[in-house]
Amino acid sequence: MTELSQQEILFEHLESGDLDQVRSMLESFHPSEIADLLESLPGRSRRLLWELVDREVEGDVLSEVQDAVRAGLLERMQPQEVAEVTKGLDTDDAADILQDLPEDVVDSVLLSMDAQNRERIASVLSYPEDTAGGLMDTDVVSVRADVSLDVVARYLRQLGQVPEHTDSLMVVDRENRYLGLLPLADVLVHKPGDSVGEHLLERAGIPADTPEAEVARTFEQRDLLSAAVLDQNAKLLGRITIDDVVDVIQEEAEQTVRSMAGLGEDDIFASVLSSTRRRAVWLGISLLSVFLAAWVIGRFEATIQELVALAILMPIVAGMGGIAGSQSLTISIRGLALGQISRKNARSLLVKELAVGLFNGAMWAAVVAGVATLWFGNRGLGLIIGLAMIINLVIAALAGTVIPLLLKRLGIDPAIAGGVILITVTDVVGFMTFLGLATIFLLP
Amino acid sequence: MTELSQQEILFEHLESGDLDQVRSMLESFHPSEIADLLESLPGRSRRLLWELVDREVEGDVLSEVQDAVRAGLLERMQPQEVAEVTKGLDTDDAADILQDLPEDVVDSVLLSMDAQNRERIASVLSYPEDTAGGLMDTDVVSVRADVSLDVVARYLRQLGQVPEHTDSLMVVDRENRYLGLLPLADVLVHKPGDSVGEHLLERAGIPADTPEAEVARTFEQRDLLSAAVLDQNAKLLGRITIDDVVDVIQEEAEQTVRSMAGLGEDDIFASVLSSTRRRAVWLGISLLSVFLAAWVIGRFEATIQELVALAILMPIVAGMGGIAGSQSLTISIRGLALGQISRKNARSLLVKELAVGLFNGAMWAAVVAGVATLWFGNRGLGLIIGLAMIINLVIAALAGTVIPLLLKRLGIDPAIAGGVILITVTDVVGFMTFLGLATIFLLP
Repeated sequence: MTELSQQEILFEHLESGDLDQVRSMLESFHPSEIADLLESLPGRSRRLLWELVDREVEGDVLSEVQDAVRAGLLERMQPQEVAEVTKGLDTDDAADILQDLPEDVVDSVLLSMDAQNRERIASVLSYPEDTAGGLMDTDVVSVRADVSLDVVARYLRQLGQVPEHTDSLMVVDRENRYLGLLPLADVLVHKPGDSVGEHLLERAGIPADTPEAEVARTFEQRDLLSAAVLDQNAKLLGRITIDDVVDVIQEEAEQTVRSMAGLGEDDIFASVLSSTRRRAVWLGISLLSVFLAAWVIGRFEATIQELVALAILMPIVAGMGGIAGSQSLTISIRGLALGQISRKNARSLLVKELAVGLFNGAMWAAVVAGVATLWFGNRGLGLIIGLAMIINLVIAALAGTVIPLLLKRLGIDPAIAGGVILITVTDVVGFMTFLGLATIFLLP
Repeated sequence: MTELSQQEILFEHLESGDLDQVRSMLESFHPSEIADLLESLPGRSRRLLWELVDREVEGDVLSEVQDAVRAGLLERMQPQEVAEVTKGLDTDDAADILQDLPEDVVDSVLLSMDAQNRERIASVLSYPEDTAGGLMDTDVVSVRADVSLDVVARYLRQLGQVPEHTDSLMVVDRENRYLGLLPLADVLVHKPGDSVGEHLLERAGIPADTPEAEVARTFEQRDLLSAAVLDQNAKLLGRITIDDVVDVIQEEAEQTVRSMAGLGEDDIFASVLSSTRRRAVWLGISLLSVFLAAWVIGRFEATIQELVALAILMPIVAGMGGIAGSQSLTISIRGLALGQISRKNARSLLVKELAVGLFNGAMWAAVVAGVATLWFGNRGLGLIIGLAMIINLVIAALAGTVIPLLLKRLGIDPAIAGGVILITVTDVVGFMTFLGLATIFLLP
């Protein structure tokens, strides 16, 4: 019913082999839009589209595309080609691309660059990809604090252009030690005779080994557009701009969602084989969890034989515990990721979650108890399922809140391991309390 | 073992009633850090800390704090106070705060402002909070295309300052119609005699009624730092800067995680009562799902009576289906949210997910069949659980992929409703195939 989007029209041309049309449509797309298109295409069509992308923008497209997709595209390129397409890029983008290549290919790419480019990219490559040093762009305009704004203005005019996304100049001393920022606007609005030092903003620089998540939080908290990256002697190495930070923020939130489902991949059209392999690991771990639950049920074989209604009702106790527990788990995982939970307030959070678990447990236990009593005409069964549900929902709140805290202390990502541990707890506790209480109170 | 963070030290002072210490520590915190502190505190301590915040930065803190937390703080303030603290804010931030207040309070806050402020804020308030108009800041510096850069430079010097985060000037014609951007750097690097028009960047403006999610995607895709917001006649209304977009991006990803767990709230220290109430709804819906599953099991009461091993093994079939299905579901939900899935490639995705489901189903079914055969010494039982698992994992892949697409077409948020529908499908199909096949083939 709705109109076809540009993307859909392009895909139709691609399917029908109308490649000239595709090529001419691509010209009107921004590199990041082409990157999105590539991510939306399964293997063969993706390679076909990639061949139609203009050589001029290949580098920009590569720097915008997801890591997993990029790796696939780079696999088929010669070192020479890679050197060619990365030439015009910002150093951080070029370094991003090179980081995905095997070391020997990186070396030959670096060799086919000119000396200046090589040196700048090598400096970024010397830091891990997920640190401030790996994110930085070494292309910066720096000025000294003791010159006048007028001199700065003349210097800029002489340069003829500044790197993209330059909103501030970096102020340094004689030894290239970082002092602060000078917003471009200040060069314009203040008296030309004023010195740079008079209008310098003292903004802390970021040490090159700062993890990227921390860089992102600093940008968010301080509403920064750019920040200086420093070596251990406080010397200016480069700058990070907010467009790179936006990618980090998005990637991180995305990572949580994927991790919680046990998905490592970030390419929705990864090959069937690699998707199967990666998800198989997660399913195998989950299998241990469900087998443990089955084993618990197996301990009560005789009880179930006596009263089959238990087998019918038991998934309710376990299932509701899992759902309530996931709510506490999500609160706890995100609270940790956003830095909202510390040792000081963890207990308040736990108390609150336990109270919520108790109230909701009591409320829905009453409903379930009523339905079970009517369904099987057995008031004892109703009481026992109600009691088991209250216990399981309180334990679920406890486990959901505490598991992420423990995992974090152990250095394990709570988003990855939290869910499966929680479900194991709520299944085991749910089956054990319900079947256990039934064995004690209902059997003759 | 680790050192106490600043935050933890402050909390300790707050607990021990050492309020002067807290007040003096607060002075060194950025407003957004104070906002984080408030979010990390349960009710009573939060109100206490809020009273210690310097009046000067209250407005900035309010604009940084999460919506749910802000609403709680605003509840206790007089209209006069609100007017006071919002005075110095950017129009978008002030409007954000006012949007949370009841209409009559907003009116009295607006009345206690001066006319110019009132008009500007009212213009932002006339757009829904989650659109470009609601995000925009009306504080913009605009210049005409036919003047020279020299004139622009003189004009800026006369202004004496520009709004925070100004990286570009807006270029308009005589009727205030938007023409494009002029980066501040261009005023500096080019010849003073050049006209603005010669260096104007033709960047599309954003219509004021554009949804904020779309605004965020435009910023990401085009690596923008700021963009013009236009009315339906292409006249310049204001500008959106990337720091506001960062908040939208983060809020959105956060929203997905919370929605998938059935959590509406965004305040980890919301009161027990309001958390209980909000989560109760989700648990009630989930209860329908688990009761349906129980009802399905109930249809096979006689079969279970005959062979209790079925009750022990059945959670394995249902549980593994749920886990595998969640993986497809997450891929599909995020693919839709990121615009990677369209009608053109939905089928490719489905085929891939089905193949992954089939392969993983077959592999783990073999393991489960083997264990079940050994455990209960019943080869028929092993065959049947294996078969049921393969069927359930393929159905899980189908449901996980397709449910979000259907929900989206129906205008329902897939992240909210997808999970519970999926689990209903995998439970029902899991129990039905396993117990059904057993009834047909295993019973005498």
